[in-house]
Amino acid sequence: MSRIYNVKGVKLGCASSNTRYGKRNDSLAIALDKKSIISGKFTSNSFKAAPIKVAQKNLKSLLPGEKVLLINSGNANAATGIKGINDVKKYCKEISSLYGINSSNVIPFSTGVIGEPLPTSKYLSAFKEAISLLNEKNWKSAAQSILTTDTKPKLISKEIIIGKKKVAITGFAKGSGMIRPDFATLLSFVFIDGKINSNSLERIHMNALSESFEALTIDGDTSPNDSSLLVASGNQENFIKKNSTDEKKLGKAVKEIFEELANLLAKDAEGATKKISVNVSQGKNRKQAKSVAFTVAESPLVKTAMFGNDANWGRILSAIGRDNEINDINKVTISINGQPMVKRGNLDPKHSEKLAAKAIKKKDIEINIKLGLGKSTFKVLTSDFSEDYVLINSDYRS
Amino acid sequence: MSRIYNVKGVKLGCASSNTRYGKRNDSLAIALDKKSIISGKFTSNSFKAAPIKVAQKNLKSLLPGEKVLLINSGNANAATGIKGINDVKKYCKEISSLYGINSSNVIPFSTGVIGEPLPTSKYLSAFKEAISLLNEKNWKSAAQSILTTDTKPKLISKEIIIGKKKVAITGFAKGSGMIRPDFATLLSFVFIDGKINSNSLERIHMNALSESFEALTIDGDTSPNDSSLLVASGNQENFIKKNSTDEKKLGKAVKEIFEELANLLAKDAEGATKKISVNVSQGKNRKQAKSVAFTVAESPLVKTAMFGNDANWGRILSAIGRDNEINDINKVTISINGQPMVKRGNLDPKHSEKLAAKAIKKKDIEINIKLGLGKSTFKVLTSDFSEDYVLINSDYRS
Repeated sequence: MSRIYNVKGVKLGCASSNTRYGKRNDSLAIALDKKSIISGKFTSNSFKAAPIKVAQKNLKSLLPGEKVLLINSGNANAATGIKGINDVKKYCKEISSLYGINSSNVIPFSTGVIGEPLPTSKYLSAFKEAISLLNEKNWKSAAQSILTTDTKPKLISKEIIIGKKKVAITGFAKGSGMIRPDFATLLSFVFIDGKINSNSLERIHMNALSESFEALTIDGDTSPNDSSLLVASGNQENFIKKNSTDEKKLGKAVKEIFEELANLLAKDAEGATKKISVNVSQGKNRKQAKSVAFTVAESPLVKTAMFGNDANWGRILSAIGRDNEINDINKVTISINGQPMVKRGNLDPKHSEKLAAKAIKKKDIEINIKLGLGKSTFKVLTSDFSEDYVLINSDYRS
Repeated sequence: MSRIYNVKGVKLGCASSNTRYGKRNDSLAIALDKKSIISGKFTSNSFKAAPIKVAQKNLKSLLPGEKVLLINSGNANAATGIKGINDVKKYCKEISSLYGINSSNVIPFSTGVIGEPLPTSKYLSAFKEAISLLNEKNWKSAAQSILTTDTKPKLISKEIIIGKKKVAITGFAKGSGMIRPDFATLLSFVFIDGKINSNSLERIHMNALSESFEALTIDGDTSPNDSSLLVASGNQENFIKKNSTDEKKLGKAVKEIFEELANLLAKDAEGATKKISVNVSQGKNRKQAKSVAFTVAESPLVKTAMFGNDANWGRILSAIGRDNEINDINKVTISINGQPMVKRGNLDPKHSEKLAAKAIKKKDIEINIKLGLGKSTFKVLTSDFSEDYVLINSDYRS
């Protein structure tokens, strides 16, 4: 892993609750300087976990001062009713007392199994321990502690030069199934070492999401716990002026980090052997291009064909043809990793079964679809569908 | 298999093209009496196979006289361009000459691999042989000959008493993947031994479809070849008066046959180990109930959980919550095979993990979802998602 840049005013600590994952760290606390500001986006699912409800409320009523993020893995605290909400309030209150801040400045997140009551006292003990271990350097263990079925941590860090200042941006994410926008990853936390206007932060966040986690689908399913935070540390040394070219530069770098995190999520999707990019162009409008990209990216028949190294363009064409936004496939062109497949809705005369069979064996697959109906584009990232996807998901709770 | 009733004026014959499936019969001819009438419904996919285009055209311009249905398995003749259409026209013309009827009275159907040119002369030879073998009794071999990845033929036959007459209804279907409405099965042919008004036949057909193949989903994918025919033989002895109670009785029996065929398809879905019925009730309207039923039935996480005997109601609730038609899950109740799971959006206090674990092991799963928002219902039939689904579909063309 390349160098990780710390973010001034951001401290991390983690510990184990000794529950689902035994001694593995599963409880993360992140303390943020009093000058920090936060932009948050949460699941679009009507089914919302208890911590999401509390986090959304608290983010709206933040008081001046330091903030603490609390993240636990292993239990989603979802569909747990009033008790679930009370459990969250309890540990937020205890940690706020311990840390000496208002309880509305504690923001909770959970990921893991749905519908089981939270072993609150055990996670609370772990959070207390995590608070005692807060440190600017704990990025790797933090990225590790939030994982569930992920096989690898997803941690990205960059330092960009803005004016003559070095601005660090560091973030991590988790999630490998039950991922689809609006929006996509279970949990993602990205931190900017700088001071920036809150509207700008919000805009940078939404813009980065739209082409990363909101353009990522693993199985079409979303979770009650999906959350993305973009935090600006408030470091006055790195002040970035509103609507400046500096702000643009920052926005671009943040977007790149979100895209890289989305890439890591697609690569580590449950049972995935390939990362697949579905690039739709020449759509009548963005809605059409997006709809087609998601329909192809979520077709079980397309995903299993990719797993089987089968350049089965017939299934791609079938998926396009059943999309609600499409009533004409006669202008459709399809290529996979540069190999011609379909031209004007039929087998491309230049198609070579042999070259296609070779191209499809790559780990990175680019499916290019031209609709021939306009100028709009949309790109969706996904993974293939393997036996392991089935095994992981048929066995998750046992 | 129970008794198969022949249908007067319907003759079947099948033979082998000696192509994809070796010596197995893959080419079926069905000759229909000149008094017969036909109701057809075809794929809603914009991507339509060559035989579908010809079949739709020919059904609109039928001439008085006998008709012949030609069905081949092994090659879908889809995405094959002008050549594909010409291939269909060629074998239809040759068979029409051989049989002495107008070529627009020959109705073609294909199922199999997409995008490969049809080995036309080989299938033509097989169709010629099939014509020479036409016989009223060949139902079992006919049902067998149209299969692709299906493991079993799907053949249903009933005799109902209308007035004092015995009316036979016999039909068969195929399809085990790439199945979802509007509408669902790849190929289905059902024959009524009677004379009936053509508007009535159409109405009976559409009504039977709406609660059978149009309420069935295996993987959300549809095919360019999906076709359902309902044929009335025209047998004057069994004349059924328009809008009579006899017609109602007939409609009910036809619907039952369609439902039984849909059941057989769900049971024999690719890699399926379970048949799952998703029963949504208390919807605000039919659109909402239908949308939720399909979202749950097509959720890969729900389907893999069912395969793994995991009564994972959290995934069901998540699927409901992400449905576009839903913005409130606080009134949702879920039970599986009679076991309480969710009450008012949270774990049902009466839930027993032990009893749920036992109930979920059954081969037939009933997921009952009450939305608590109104009075509308919709039921969708599906199957679980197994390792074998992935194996079958990653390996289909190789």
